[in-house]
Amino acid sequence: MRLEPGDPDWEAKVRDSFARQGAMATIGARLARVAPGEVDIEVTRHPAIQQQHGYVHGGVVGMIADSAGGYAGFSSMLPGASVLTVEYKMNLLSPADGDTILAKGRVVKPGRTLVVTQVDVYSVKQGREKLCALMTQTLMTMAGKSDGPQV
Amino acid sequence: MRLEPGDPDWEAKVRDSFARQGAMATIGARLARVAPGEVDIEVTRHPAIQQQHGYVHGGVVGMIADSAGGYAGFSSMLPGASVLTVEYKMNLLSPADGDTILAKGRVVKPGRTLVVTQVDVYSVKQGREKLCALMTQTLMTMAGKSDGPQV
Amino acid sequence: MRLEPGDPDWEAKVRDSFARQGAMATIGARLARVAPGEVDIEVTRHPAIQQQHGYVHGGVVGMIADSAGGYAGFSSMLPGASVLTVEYKMNLLSPADGDTILAKGRVVKPGRTLVVTQVDVYSVKQGREKLCALMTQTLMTMAGKSDGPQV
Amino acid sequence: MRLEPGDPDWEAKVRDSFARQGAMATIGARLARVAPGEVDIEVTRHPAIQQQHGYVHGGVVGMIADSAGGYAGFSSMLPGASVLTVEYKMNLLSPADGDTILAKGRVVKPGRTLVVTQVDVYSVKQGREKLCALMTQTLMTMAGKSDGPQV
Repeated sequence: MRLEPGDPDWEAKVRDSFARQGAMATIGARLARVAPGEVDIEVTRHPAIQQQHGYVHGGVVGMIADSAGGYAGFSSMLPGASVLTVEYKMNLLSPADGDTILAKGRVVKPGRTLVVTQVDVYSVKQGREKLCALMTQTLMTMAGKSDGPQV
Repeated sequence: MRLEPGDPDWEAKVRDSFARQGAMATIGARLARVAPGEVDIEVTRHPAIQQQHGYVHGGVVGMIADSAGGYAGFSSMLPGASVLTVEYKMNLLSPADGDTILAKGRVVKPGRTLVVTQVDVYSVKQGREKLCALMTQTLMTMAGKSDGPQV
Repeated sequence: MRLEPGDPDWEAKVRDSFARQGAMATIGARLARVAPGEVDIEVTRHPAIQQQHGYVHGGVVGMIADSAGGYAGFSSMLPGASVLTVEYKMNLLSPADGDTILAKGRVVKPGRTLVVTQVDVYSVKQGREKLCALMTQTLMTMAGKSDGPQV
Repeated sequence: MRLEPGDPDWEAKVRDSFARQGAMATIGARLARVAPGEVDIEVTRHPAIQQQHGYVHGGVVGMIADSAGGYAGFSSMLPGASVLTVEYKMNLLSPADGDTILAKGRVVKPGRTLVVTQVDVYSVKQGREKLCALMTQTLMTMAGKSDGPQV
């Protein structure tokens, strides 16, 4: 579903908000793509975000998935709104053993109060994408709080 | 439910495995308590794990909750087993704005193949605990893989 | 958590709304207990609600759990409000092979817009309760729609 | 993902098992389509499966979604296997107010022990499909239990 952006400044809002999340910098996450209702976030595998087998930690996979869904929702919001993660559910399908982990978030149900997103997470090895996790997420719109997903 | 440990070395196994997770060190997470079938993990709030409002990032809350549940399951396993997170669902109930965030994981359904856990996450401010998130998690036991939760 | 009812008529509202749900009558579900923020619903096992092994169908377990959580939330609402199920997650822990299946719903996080509940479902055989399913559920309050959970 | 059937008799197995579920008959559910790894189940709206607003009860939506995912998984199993619902998560996106409710289940991750499915549920009014619910479901394969999803 290609959404209309609700705010002409949507892209600057997404990039500014992302830049202010210390936790995203800590794990080395980057905005890979932004479009109205669709945001991709990726992270390169390195020891500081691994579990004991050398794969990317499931919690880090969850972090970038949660943010990809949250910014996908935020990108479609009206001016002056922000977004809160209400809940999410994640299935870990295969090890996050790629060179890069890429979370592709998209709005599946826009709404005035609640927005539902789904996120497909891929483990990318030598350019080949393998689905490694799925998330479904519920966001709540907060009118009059203007600075991004409050994850 | 107080579980019997399946391995006399359960506590050393949990502590060793936790110590090998680079991602837990990166966010500053600590094992706060270990008992058979019950593991608490906490993290002190600091800028490197915050979102843009200064609260602990929801993804970090998810990381410590996922690990608390995973190690709660692992603490009850037989020798030579490890544990894989199959899926989890998290509800974020209130902002993680405490000085410390504390995730208390416990096994609610032990099993030979699958183990179900629940995790209550508290935001702790001046010693007062406030429930800020709930997780329900499904783990899978991997016989013959001996080193902890593969989150 | 013992909640204050938001409406002095809360009990009549819950009972009236339940009585108007054709689907609850179809499966033979009954209100077993109502208190502010806590509602139990039960069903007796019989062939019309079974799966092919003679256990109560997981979908029927889901129906009574969803309704128990929904009415738990509704029982704490202000006059004139109704409640909508936004999402739920259910873990099926053991077969629903009891004489009676009993779903105990309770509000874990009240709220003006969103309410979170948890439901423990028991399989009851000769008076002994065995936990057979867990649900976590998000409800949305609808002001000015006055007749119960819109599941 | 188009899957290979694991059993040449897959279609007869699915239809036989479905026919033995009393609960599916009780709500009037039908198998609308079966393919390896993909099963659609539908139900016509009528008072016995409604909630108090005349929409199809969310629990009934959950029942057909759970079964559509379960039979999608079962259709890809080896001879002699059956399938157990471990857990599912459902988001209700809009009222189930159609003439027919149609749940389209598909396997998203096949596996020897665990199978993950997703189900899109549509409210169909005068031939127009509207997405009304999403489910993600985890199934467990039970070798040597030969008769379908044990939901």
